[in-house]
Amino acid sequence: MNEPNERSFTLAELVERFGGELLGDPEGRVWRVATLECAAATDVSFFTNPKYRRQLEATRAGAVILARHDAHYTERSRIVSANPYAYFAKVSALLNPPRHWAAGVDPSASVHPNAQIDPTATLGAFVRVGEGARVGARTVIGAGCVLGDGVSLGADSLLHPRVVIYDNCALGDRVILHSGVVIGADGFGLAMDEGRWRKIPQVGRVLVGDDVEVGANTTIDRGAVEDTVIEEDVKLDNQIQIGHNCRIGAHTAIAGCVGIAGSTRIGRYCRIGGSAMIGGHLEIVDNVEISGAAAIAKSILKPGTYTALFPVSRHEDWLRNASHLRHLDALAGRIRELERHLAELERTKS
Amino acid sequence: MNEPNERSFTLAELVERFGGELLGDPEGRVWRVATLECAAATDVSFFTNPKYRRQLEATRAGAVILARHDAHYTERSRIVSANPYAYFAKVSALLNPPRHWAAGVDPSASVHPNAQIDPTATLGAFVRVGEGARVGARTVIGAGCVLGDGVSLGADSLLHPRVVIYDNCALGDRVILHSGVVIGADGFGLAMDEGRWRKIPQVGRVLVGDDVEVGANTTIDRGAVEDTVIEEDVKLDNQIQIGHNCRIGAHTAIAGCVGIAGSTRIGRYCRIGGSAMIGGHLEIVDNVEISGAAAIAKSILKPGTYTALFPVSRHEDWLRNASHLRHLDALAGRIRELERHLAELERTKS
Amino acid sequence: MNEPNERSFTLAELVERFGGELLGDPEGRVWRVATLECAAATDVSFFTNPKYRRQLEATRAGAVILARHDAHYTERSRIVSANPYAYFAKVSALLNPPRHWAAGVDPSASVHPNAQIDPTATLGAFVRVGEGARVGARTVIGAGCVLGDGVSLGADSLLHPRVVIYDNCALGDRVILHSGVVIGADGFGLAMDEGRWRKIPQVGRVLVGDDVEVGANTTIDRGAVEDTVIEEDVKLDNQIQIGHNCRIGAHTAIAGCVGIAGSTRIGRYCRIGGSAMIGGHLEIVDNVEISGAAAIAKSILKPGTYTALFPVSRHEDWLRNASHLRHLDALAGRIRELERHLAELERTKS
Repeated sequence: MNEPNERSFTLAELVERFGGELLGDPEGRVWRVATLECAAATDVSFFTNPKYRRQLEATRAGAVILARHDAHYTERSRIVSANPYAYFAKVSALLNPPRHWAAGVDPSASVHPNAQIDPTATLGAFVRVGEGARVGARTVIGAGCVLGDGVSLGADSLLHPRVVIYDNCALGDRVILHSGVVIGADGFGLAMDEGRWRKIPQVGRVLVGDDVEVGANTTIDRGAVEDTVIEEDVKLDNQIQIGHNCRIGAHTAIAGCVGIAGSTRIGRYCRIGGSAMIGGHLEIVDNVEISGAAAIAKSILKPGTYTALFPVSRHEDWLRNASHLRHLDALAGRIRELERHLAELERTKS
Repeated sequence: MNEPNERSFTLAELVERFGGELLGDPEGRVWRVATLECAAATDVSFFTNPKYRRQLEATRAGAVILARHDAHYTERSRIVSANPYAYFAKVSALLNPPRHWAAGVDPSASVHPNAQIDPTATLGAFVRVGEGARVGARTVIGAGCVLGDGVSLGADSLLHPRVVIYDNCALGDRVILHSGVVIGADGFGLAMDEGRWRKIPQVGRVLVGDDVEVGANTTIDRGAVEDTVIEEDVKLDNQIQIGHNCRIGAHTAIAGCVGIAGSTRIGRYCRIGGSAMIGGHLEIVDNVEISGAAAIAKSILKPGTYTALFPVSRHEDWLRNASHLRHLDALAGRIRELERHLAELERTKS
Repeated sequence: MNEPNERSFTLAELVERFGGELLGDPEGRVWRVATLECAAATDVSFFTNPKYRRQLEATRAGAVILARHDAHYTERSRIVSANPYAYFAKVSALLNPPRHWAAGVDPSASVHPNAQIDPTATLGAFVRVGEGARVGARTVIGAGCVLGDGVSLGADSLLHPRVVIYDNCALGDRVILHSGVVIGADGFGLAMDEGRWRKIPQVGRVLVGDDVEVGANTTIDRGAVEDTVIEEDVKLDNQIQIGHNCRIGAHTAIAGCVGIAGSTRIGRYCRIGGSAMIGGHLEIVDNVEISGAAAIAKSILKPGTYTALFPVSRHEDWLRNASHLRHLDALAGRIRELERHLAELERTKS
């Protein structure tokens, strides 16, 4: 929970700023966001997931942001919005403004004399910046980050501690990289040659568009030959692996632990569930949703939602059922045989 | 293997300390642990997994810790215990005492003047500690770790090199964090708003209880609004991802590469196998065991073991069998139709 | 893409160095590698994947490396090779020689006085090297790496920034470790003892052979008792987790996001697809190929390709089909019953 930050707003002020319809007390004052369950009278909360309806009915929040068709579940003050979650995002951003960082380079940082650091940028302790690297205006680089030679960062970006960006990768404006992110490591390019692996030099870069956010310990490999590209407003959760030469289309969101093998192209506005795996050299078109844990081995050329989940059961039930999977073809053959046999029986009967 | 450490014990001394029944030479002296296969006469080993019975029969260990019903498989000295693996843990801890660290702050460390570092704590090279952070007695912080502002660490904890803890997270006593761990990065909170993603500020913290161990490169996100909570004695292996707002119950153990999506609650004394994936907003009650690689998309409200493994087969067999999965409903329909047909045939026959 | 590097070669020179048959202009000069799609007249490209045949037919590359049976798809200059991908690897390595690093220790590095650093080695900013560690000739250690006490690195190795190697692990020559790699963290060894977990000291090491490459954020745990072993020429992609006591055989290649639980032995020349999961205490023999996303719960004792992929379908189709998986045993029973019934009908008929 954030510390009291002396920013508080009346509900009337919120509605004036962000629109929506207020049901309840316009003078009600909130200064914190909270869940329906934990909210007190000075907190603002939101409701979008029907799972939490009981919490909505019992909430003591100072105000709840919700859709019109849910407004009757509580008598607390409400702000009715067509997009309650986005509305909540705006209110939370208002109540929790981003931290201010003093501009300047920490004396412990190691910056190559030929790097160009904007005077309004902030470099933390033990940051290493290589030759020819560029850091844009107001960009903040956390402790222990390493920027290789020729790396280019735009403006208003935030690198949390311990990010590594390999040589020559280029990132846009308003990019957020969380700790442990590695951008531009070599792709997995190997040729078997007389019984030993021979490394393919990975000479492409990684290009990252504006407004991209990358979660902790996610890795994005540089291209083998051309560049790996992450388009604008792509959102990557933690521990994702993106192979060399991939292109991820704008506004696509990928949940944690997803692996995407090399040379795959993913469209715009896709949503990929956690722990999904997407094979190499595939094409996924725009507006595809892939359910969590699905392993995708073929291209997907039509928008829609795709799933490949093995249903969970008690272990003893699984034992009994799963053994048949190795004999499905035989089972299908036996059904065909039964059908043939029965038809014959019918024929001879008549 | 550890270096000779001049700590050795007779079997009589071990049994005096830790209980159990000694079968064999009480004056036998051991100073090292070893596997059954590699053990020499000065080594102590253990047996719990029936897979290794042949190694037990052939072992040359100075002593083997095992259960009574396995004691007849070898004539080497044995220590009979009701819990051989825990007994072995105690013996190994006795023979391999934790490393001693000299108290003090490495001169290269960057510690905010308002941080409170216990004088018995150890801070390694290039450690960065933020404003208002607190480090408890005898806690060791390895090289390159970064503690954000307001982070609180208890006593007797060990952070291996290159751990990052974001602002305001709070950890208990005797916590072990391995290299690459990231605690408190932003959860994956996004609202789609007129074609672009809008970030939900992640204002909760991560709270970690006493005696928690977290494996290398594991990530635990801070709460979106309230806190993410890891209760006492939880054990997390490497490369696990825990989403925002999760609560993991005390004494639960989670194997490597598991992903747990946001707002899921996992009970006490659960065991989750490697590479399992657990969806968001779910509840898993106490004493649930989830098999490796299972993807859990629904809450589990009864204790027990749950499995969802697609059986492996040779690729050509898989090709033949798996194609039917896309037509299971049709197959089931054909079976129903056959049953109906056959019953009708029966009826008309009689 | 790499910067112009003033290295260019005629096709005649390439064939003289690396063999193969040249079809086309021996005086054609190339200085860059490129994909078929992007290549210009001064670029050399290659063709191995039939998916890209259209790009081959349309390419404007200065030369294409390909197999004899593909040589007729283009009239551009070609180099015919029995192993086009390995040939391309050699050409790319020629055109993109490894970066040269000046020998020496960065003044910001923290090196224990009892460490042995070869004078031809390079240590970057904020590197920490522990007591008794050894770094071989021409080995390069990137910014922020941490080598524990007693770590041993061979010659001609490259550690990218922010690698951690725990105490006493030993690596061979020509090893490449990418950023975020953690070698030698404690394995997941725990014994439940009267309701609490008891830690098993992890006293083995990690041994890494010559010519091993390890991808970004991959973790390899130290042995519980004996050592974890990665044999020569093993290639590991990003975000792989290898549990304690594993042995990975020489020349095996493992793609991203794979998890291998403890005490499993994998043979030589295996290939393991991305996001596969391999259980503990298993044996996988030489020359096994495991498809992406397969979860392996039993040993594999015969060479071959093994698969366990749940086929993807549209969500609504999946809903209809997957529900039957929980009743496969009942379906199989109904087929048996139908067969029995039909046979009886036959009998009574005749």
